Amino acid sequence: MVDIEKANAYAVEQMMEARPVVTGVGKALDVIPGMHENLLLHAGPPVTWERMAGPMKGAMVGALMFEGKAKGWDDAEALLKSGKVQFAPCHHYASAGPMAGVISPSMLCYVVENKTHGNKAFSNLNEGRGKVLRMGAYSQDVLDKLTWMNEVLGPTVGAALEAMGGLDIRTLLAKALHMGDDGHNRLDAASMLYTVALAPYIVKVAKDSATASEVIRFLGENALSILNPVMAACKTMADAGHNVEGSTIVTVMARNGTDFGIRVSGLGDRWFTGPAGIVKALYFPGFTEKDANPDIGDSTITETAGIGGFAMAGAPAIVTFISGTPKDAINTTLDMYEITYAEHKYFTIPALDFRGTPTGIDIRKVIEKNLPPRVNTGVAHKDPGIGQVGAGVVTPPMNIFEDALVAFAEKYGY
Amino acid sequence: MVDIEKANAYAVEQMMEARPVVTGVGKALDVIPGMHENLLLHAGPPVTWERMAGPMKGAMVGALMFEGKAKGWDDAEALLKSGKVQFAPCHHYASAGPMAGVISPSMLCYVVENKTHGNKAFSNLNEGRGKVLRMGAYSQDVLDKLTWMNEVLGPTVGAALEAMGGLDIRTLLAKALHMGDDGHNRLDAASMLYTVALAPYIVKVAKDSATASEVIRFLGENALSILNPVMAACKTMADAGHNVEGSTIVTVMARNGTDFGIRVSGLGDRWFTGPAGIVKALYFPGFTEKDANPDIGDSTITETAGIGGFAMAGAPAIVTFISGTPKDAINTTLDMYEITYAEHKYFTIPALDFRGTPTGIDIRKVIEKNLPPRVNTGVAHKDPGIGQVGAGVVTPPMNIFEDALVAFAEKYGY
Repeated sequence: MVDIEKANAYAVEQMMEARPVVTGVGKALDVIPGMHENLLLHAGPPVTWERMAGPMKGAMVGALMFEGKAKGWDDAEALLKSGKVQFAPCHHYASAGPMAGVISPSMLCYVVENKTHGNKAFSNLNEGRGKVLRMGAYSQDVLDKLTWMNEVLGPTVGAALEAMGGLDIRTLLAKALHMGDDGHNRLDAASMLYTVALAPYIVKVAKDSATASEVIRFLGENALSILNPVMAACKTMADAGHNVEGSTIVTVMARNGTDFGIRVSGLGDRWFTGPAGIVKALYFPGFTEKDANPDIGDSTITETAGIGGFAMAGAPAIVTFISGTPKDAINTTLDMYEITYAEHKYFTIPALDFRGTPTGIDIRKVIEKNLPPRVNTGVAHKDPGIGQVGAGVVTPPMNIFEDALVAFAEKYGY
Repeated sequence: MVDIEKANAYAVEQMMEARPVVTGVGKALDVIPGMHENLLLHAGPPVTWERMAGPMKGAMVGALMFEGKAKGWDDAEALLKSGKVQFAPCHHYASAGPMAGVISPSMLCYVVENKTHGNKAFSNLNEGRGKVLRMGAYSQDVLDKLTWMNEVLGPTVGAALEAMGGLDIRTLLAKALHMGDDGHNRLDAASMLYTVALAPYIVKVAKDSATASEVIRFLGENALSILNPVMAACKTMADAGHNVEGSTIVTVMARNGTDFGIRVSGLGDRWFTGPAGIVKALYFPGFTEKDANPDIGDSTITETAGIGGFAMAGAPAIVTFISGTPKDAINTTLDMYEITYAEHKYFTIPALDFRGTPTGIDIRKVIEKNLPPRVNTGVAHKDPGIGQVGAGVVTPPMNIFEDALVAFAEKYGY
């Protein structure tokens, strides 16, 4: 019999000891292994065009327009339906993308390297709030911003990261968790720390002072500017704990807007999927739950790595954004200790006497306690072309943990 | 009979409605009304040279060396003992200085204007941690840094503040209190927000990119870079509530390292003083309580305005710096509600369900509950020339509140 406890202890130790450093920015085609000219990456588990959620379709159309491969919806749809342009989960390519999570070959991406184990992960650049590709918008202003990001923002930030020798995201997150961030939906402090760390180098590498000023302002005004490197960092941590024989620890949670999928350390690259839930959310003025697309995005890699919703106890101010009370935030973290294997060695919560965050979701505990992981997330409009309509809380369907546990029993002969 | 309740409600309302904006930087001699060539300002209530604490003496000597009026201790002491150079509390000149709080005529100072009521206050630039004038150090490296601050840092930050049209400190503090800051000893978030807000303008106004990079780095690496404008901001708030006939609200708390002094809104500019306490502190390696100077500095203007130790419930991570547990931090804030008149309209604490911070110390309540205000503070070495040795917690002597209440009864005929 395989020693599950030992396997889980090892998997979670690997996750916690991963030390992700964002080292630079490069073109997806150049930096993501396996990326090719006719491939789009997307959030969540695999999905067909027919079952694909509106905002993900919108983001794919926008990405093909950005790539110069399509002039609009019809062109793009034809390419995608014909298979001339393929699409696959970010997670199949060591990547993670927020919301629709569409990464196209020309897009600049962050490169994050786990200095402990050597594995890398990738994510695109954050667009800020408002009408953005990741929420399914693809109008000209959305595409113009992507162009600016590729031509100005990305090269400048990349050069700054290289000049500074990379930035340790684990250390930065540990600090931000003491500054009211949860590390997923609330990254106000982390994004400020990121901007402050980069700024002295941006000034040195930018082509002129107007560019430096513009880039620093964009990073500083976007409370999610660090979300994407954080997601890639969490991906390297989770990957460091993946493929441990006999481990029941979840190493991926991801949603494509149609399905919620997980992967489990001891079960290789198999996805266990079920329907993505509707988010219990605070909606922006003019929108209601009727407008909401189901749960979408790879950002649940943060919860997989022990932060995000799991670290909410340290982020009471987040309730102004996702609803609820500070007491709910405390209770959420306390609940998550019930379904996780360890308390994080480096991520701690001052309000809980510096207790480590609940880390390493154990599918056995999820079933035993009948308690699914808690996820905080943004909400996209269900139709393409619109954008964000709110933010709130959601849980994965329980069947995916049940199916995974059954598969585990079959594989390991229980 | 004067209506104390009405007077206090008015005084505290004035304090809370003050909206301090840091508008620029100027030479003390030019911007502080009444400042003259042969005057040094210092923290706390008035004190003679003979009774003056070591670190304050050290800072005065350093300031006179910086001014080019003295070559060393003996020169400087002769000038100060003879009265050729005078000294007076910052608070007599609408100013506030951290620790020794020495402001000399040539030093550049922040100008903070309360946009609601029009009053101004001033503070010098923050030197960062380590060997610094405000802790009583006055070696050549301390003086060199002051020169750099006057020649590079101050003019650049001042030009950036002017270019941006000033920065609203009340709004910034409100945000920082949701990011784990107390607004006094922990200003990690506020200093990041400050740096991020200034950086795009610093890039534009700096004389070259190396200067911009150096200034942004200095602000960003100093978790107290915003302390001095915050103190001046709190001074404008407290002053807005001062001199309200019949009010028992404290409008100044300040320490000179020998005495702790308060002023009370309805009692004009009279000081009530008693011995400064020894701080219960976490000491830096190599130092103990035997090295500690008693409580020193004007930074208690933050507690006077409803933040600092009073807002600790929102800053649990501060206990790693000043000792104690997160539970103590919550209890401190809860205690302070017992001795204050109002809950702040703009400064709120997420962990207490967004309750306003305890604001407006009422001398009647301090006596009635026998509960002195709680102060968090840095600790300077008792000898001149050394610097900071730790940080911790302290309370003012109770007699100053008793004396003030007796004076109030006498003045208003109770």
